[in-house]
Amino acid sequence: MRSLIAMAKARAKSVLKPTVQRLGVPAPSLDPQTWGLADDGRHGLSLQGQRLTDLVARWGSPLYVMSADRLRTNARRYTTPEGNPSGCEIYYSYKTHPVPAALRVLHSEGIGAEVISHHELWLARQLGVPPGQIVYNGPGKSTESIREAIDLGIQLININHSEEIARVAVAAQAAGRKPRVGLRITTGGGWTGQFGTPVAGGAALAAFAEADATGVLDVVAVHAHAGGMIHSRDALLQAIGPLLDFVEELESRRGKPLEILDFGGSLATPAVCHLGALDLRLNRTFQRDLPEPRLEHALSIEEYVTTIRSTVEQRYRLRNRPMPRIFIEPGRSMTSDTTLLVASVISTKRTPGACFLILDAGINLAESVRSEYHHLLPVKGWRDERTCTYTVVGPICTPGDTLSYAWRSRELVEGDLVAIMDAGAYFVPFSTSFSYPRPAIVMLEGPDVHLARRAETFEDIIARDVFPGC
Amino acid sequence: MRSLIAMAKARAKSVLKPTVQRLGVPAPSLDPQTWGLADDGRHGLSLQGQRLTDLVARWGSPLYVMSADRLRTNARRYTTPEGNPSGCEIYYSYKTHPVPAALRVLHSEGIGAEVISHHELWLARQLGVPPGQIVYNGPGKSTESIREAIDLGIQLININHSEEIARVAVAAQAAGRKPRVGLRITTGGGWTGQFGTPVAGGAALAAFAEADATGVLDVVAVHAHAGGMIHSRDALLQAIGPLLDFVEELESRRGKPLEILDFGGSLATPAVCHLGALDLRLNRTFQRDLPEPRLEHALSIEEYVTTIRSTVEQRYRLRNRPMPRIFIEPGRSMTSDTTLLVASVISTKRTPGACFLILDAGINLAESVRSEYHHLLPVKGWRDERTCTYTVVGPICTPGDTLSYAWRSRELVEGDLVAIMDAGAYFVPFSTSFSYPRPAIVMLEGPDVHLARRAETFEDIIARDVFPGC
Repeated sequence: MRSLIAMAKARAKSVLKPTVQRLGVPAPSLDPQTWGLADDGRHGLSLQGQRLTDLVARWGSPLYVMSADRLRTNARRYTTPEGNPSGCEIYYSYKTHPVPAALRVLHSEGIGAEVISHHELWLARQLGVPPGQIVYNGPGKSTESIREAIDLGIQLININHSEEIARVAVAAQAAGRKPRVGLRITTGGGWTGQFGTPVAGGAALAAFAEADATGVLDVVAVHAHAGGMIHSRDALLQAIGPLLDFVEELESRRGKPLEILDFGGSLATPAVCHLGALDLRLNRTFQRDLPEPRLEHALSIEEYVTTIRSTVEQRYRLRNRPMPRIFIEPGRSMTSDTTLLVASVISTKRTPGACFLILDAGINLAESVRSEYHHLLPVKGWRDERTCTYTVVGPICTPGDTLSYAWRSRELVEGDLVAIMDAGAYFVPFSTSFSYPRPAIVMLEGPDVHLARRAETFEDIIARDVFPGC
Repeated sequence: MRSLIAMAKARAKSVLKPTVQRLGVPAPSLDPQTWGLADDGRHGLSLQGQRLTDLVARWGSPLYVMSADRLRTNARRYTTPEGNPSGCEIYYSYKTHPVPAALRVLHSEGIGAEVISHHELWLARQLGVPPGQIVYNGPGKSTESIREAIDLGIQLININHSEEIARVAVAAQAAGRKPRVGLRITTGGGWTGQFGTPVAGGAALAAFAEADATGVLDVVAVHAHAGGMIHSRDALLQAIGPLLDFVEELESRRGKPLEILDFGGSLATPAVCHLGALDLRLNRTFQRDLPEPRLEHALSIEEYVTTIRSTVEQRYRLRNRPMPRIFIEPGRSMTSDTTLLVASVISTKRTPGACFLILDAGINLAESVRSEYHHLLPVKGWRDERTCTYTVVGPICTPGDTLSYAWRSRELVEGDLVAIMDAGAYFVPFSTSFSYPRPAIVMLEGPDVHLARRAETFEDIIARDVFPGC
């Protein structure tokens, strides 16, 4: 009986497949130029004059390739969109792409550090970031790290929720210093859960009153990080508006202005979007292409920054108040498109129903690809007729190690390279050493290339192990 | 309009919640004794006489606590169930819990190594495993690792799919050695996708013929790893039966018997089960308890091994053939219940709708808990009335860092400890350094405790980084 149902299902699938494949799938639009890649024909894709094939030949596969030039460009789009100062202070979200070489470039462009753990606070100091350019966020701050942040006198500690007020206050009292703090609030849209204190029901107002009442905290900021991905101006305005409403009410109650409005991050990067359950399912069941993000609809960094700035200006002008300082904490939009991951084809596998492309990188290095659109490109022949539909999998032994259930490409063979784009957000921090060492990261700077992080060795993976008897 | 719908939804949720919470939820049944834990009242849970609170005080939090005694017990249940040799050869799946101290204990009990990557092959050799006790599996074997496996003369290389035959054959020819190989097949149930060659349509038979025809491979085995979790004798028999049918057909065609039947792994561990989408959703939306696995229904290691053995015996007796060697490759069932993860409460957060318990360990260390039932226990007072329903989250700044949407417990405060059970399968290999260093692993051996892996330091996380100008 069960096999009859299975047969009926398989039959229905094969009949429906051609129709579903054609339905609602936009023509592929993403050109390698989107990420600054050039195609020199025989040798395939290159970035800043460096052929990806040469980089892999020299540094091994898989390989993260990062561009200092693109990091600088993105940083400047934030700090000086269209050449003029944005009037916003920019703190990069360390957790998104915590690679020191990348962070150094951003800091050299005047970007500060947004950290969410003791390790990241330490890392910012290691990289020479002055305390005045560090913001400390997150729901899980250890007591020790709160103490250190207070001792350092960092720019801002954003208190995540009401119960954290007392923890910071106790540490402040012990240190005999009055730290500069903000309170994270939620306004209805965006992430809630463990994050922030809701404006609804007066909880956020009460939290400010409580923080003020401690007498040991210098409450200078409000923090509202939307979370998720902001793709449009409308979505941005929906996030900003309620925050400004709240600030107005708060200031009138407190009788004094807030020094800082911290808008968090969440701007999407143009070529990445969350994949819906239906799109994933159609991709899996009917091998329908995943819908590519439409670049022409993307909210640019420049629009994002200037929209925040002008919206605040307009509101404060109406209220006849001096402008507050504006903090922005970009992650994804700053680094996602500055890094790509090159993987090699280890083997292919043909079955009557599908063709598998087995890469040397899977979810161990590219976990985000399970739930986000990331463009894949054959390093050579990306323009060739896409005659194969591949299920793209990694090397670790689980069916979950699947990067795409249907990716169309020219036919690829063992040793061919595939570039996974937008590897500069949440690839490195979510990477694991599951059965395979983590790869090297190289940095392209103008025409030069240097190693930013060497590949993990077999020895590294067990370097912290104590062998009995040794 | 949107807010009206949201209000209606919230109202429906609050009305339905009490009913849904009561529906179909079994009474909690899992006692700490399940994992060998004792409760000495005031000091809370202890393992082999070591209080978890003392271990954390000494080695830090979070902390993996591993028991050598339980590893030995599980190994013996496989090798000598009820005191008699099982007649099966056991290869532990390295990827499941690749901690050298644990692997050493297993090897000292006569367990071999089942590896899926060059790193794991190297690790087995580092640990002194003789080549004759190594089996090499997986869809992503690098050419270099295939060569090394052939040069070493390991027990068995299981070729994953047809296209891998040529790769192994070419390496064998180059090495001038005839490696012992098996072919992975699929029989309809269990994992397919990138794994194995299907029996259906004659593909598996053709693959054996192809491997034989190379003339350079010593085809000695068939490999069939079900994947997922085998919870019952019925499910086991459904996996074994079609394999034995296939072997019968294969042997009659080839005219010679196979030396080895490799049944792979996949035995479930008693206190862990996959969570269905509905259970997860009810937990999230209505705070309904996750359904606990029923220990009395669990298939024991002893039953599993003896069922495989006796089923093969019966079939071979009927066929009047000498018994083949039986290989089993346990992962989860060998180590899952030998290790637990202790985490500390950093903070709590109360909102009108939920109460959050913020731990210093989340999906960065316990990724599997997102899709599997893992029992959580307050280290002190697990018997106390469970007055709070917590959303248990980790410290990394994403709503995805949630271990449970509704876990009932006594009220916990900052500094309290929570034990996450069954951390001995897929916790360590899926762990990341996302904003937080990875914890130490201690090993309990009888009444003694020693460090198996030291905690990652802040420096370790960037130890492979090259700082420009340094």
